[in-house]
Amino acid sequence: MAGRTAVVLVSGGLDSAVVLAWMQREGFECVALTIDYGQRHRAELDCARRIAEQACVREHLVQRIDLRAVGGSALTGSEPVPKSGASDGIPVTYVPARNTLFLSLALGLAEARGARDIALGINAVDYSGYPDCRPAFLESFAATANLATRAGVQAADRGDLAFRFHAPLLNLSKPQIIRLGGELGVDFARTSSCYDPQPDGSACGQCDSCRIRAAGFAAAGLADPKVC
Amino acid sequence: MAGRTAVVLVSGGLDSAVVLAWMQREGFECVALTIDYGQRHRAELDCARRIAEQACVREHLVQRIDLRAVGGSALTGSEPVPKSGASDGIPVTYVPARNTLFLSLALGLAEARGARDIALGINAVDYSGYPDCRPAFLESFAATANLATRAGVQAADRGDLAFRFHAPLLNLSKPQIIRLGGELGVDFARTSSCYDPQPDGSACGQCDSCRIRAAGFAAAGLADPKVC
Repeated sequence: MAGRTAVVLVSGGLDSAVVLAWMQREGFECVALTIDYGQRHRAELDCARRIAEQACVREHLVQRIDLRAVGGSALTGSEPVPKSGASDGIPVTYVPARNTLFLSLALGLAEARGARDIALGINAVDYSGYPDCRPAFLESFAATANLATRAGVQAADRGDLAFRFHAPLLNLSKPQIIRLGGELGVDFARTSSCYDPQPDGSACGQCDSCRIRAAGFAAAGLADPKVC
Repeated sequence: MAGRTAVVLVSGGLDSAVVLAWMQREGFECVALTIDYGQRHRAELDCARRIAEQACVREHLVQRIDLRAVGGSALTGSEPVPKSGASDGIPVTYVPARNTLFLSLALGLAEARGARDIALGINAVDYSGYPDCRPAFLESFAATANLATRAGVQAADRGDLAFRFHAPLLNLSKPQIIRLGGELGVDFARTSSCYDPQPDGSACGQCDSCRIRAAGFAAAGLADPKVC
């Protein structure tokens, strides 16, 4: 099992759906991990379930953790999600230490399942300015992961690294990601990108994430099957 | 507020109670963070509440996350806690990526509260062989934390580091930790060390953690007020 099983962080959004399809094409048997952290955009959790089901993953674990009690973000707190277009700097939708937390959960799950590969949909191009979507962050987390774990210690004894991290979208633009997803057969209708969906789950069409998605489909010359 | 507020991981065990008292003596206003991860030894959660209350912390957040669904450890799974004394290598009570996860939660809370100091009770002497209690792990996590966060990016722009990690027990033996706790006025009767307590919360007296605690009090020449 070890070596060909991968843990994939699946949010329910477009990017991680493409990553899951990409890892499956690479030959990995995938364990999907979704985090229900009290996000405002809970519609993505239903999408994550449908994506994992359609992909016939080996296991889909939904972990709950209450980041509303922590706060510090428009995605988990009471302050509104901006609708006026991208701003300079790190936006208020940044969630403190979110990817560090998500990768920690993925790391523990990977070690417990005998998986040595972990994949996520971070992106350094259209990344909205989040610090934990940068290559330097991921490289540093990978070094930490290999020091933190039993598997890491055992691999180090053999002069090897236990865990490999895959971020296949890291250097792609949104149109490139959408074209890649199209090639991989991703069903975009099952994905949710909106940070502030309507009560019925439909996208607001105005938040940063909706804007980036719409511009991506337009630049890719494709129609988004998930109409806002 | 920033600069003198610290997030302290408080498990309910002896070591983290000493760390909390140590940070308070250093002048920090402390936010205590306890993780209810489905541990077998839930008695420590009650101890954590009593320790935080007695210390008059600014806030005590108990985060719940189900690591039983992840498994891979005698502390969260169905396999028994060993009672025959310390074994070679990393023991079965190791929880995959536990300290990486706990520190990630502490990091997000610290950033959200404007705290720049994070403290925990890891120890490289009587550390039971856990990889995530080693200095190299903590140094690597600190580097990751400063890359992962908005506060880290802002500090880097000033040529500074945002987050400082405190592990004041790292190089102390158990008797030294107990003597330090005594000097700091820690009420050891409120702490719980056992990995496999009885239904009434009393310690088993035979697991690694009970053995290390008993030997520590004996070597320190003190009586443990928490009699097994």
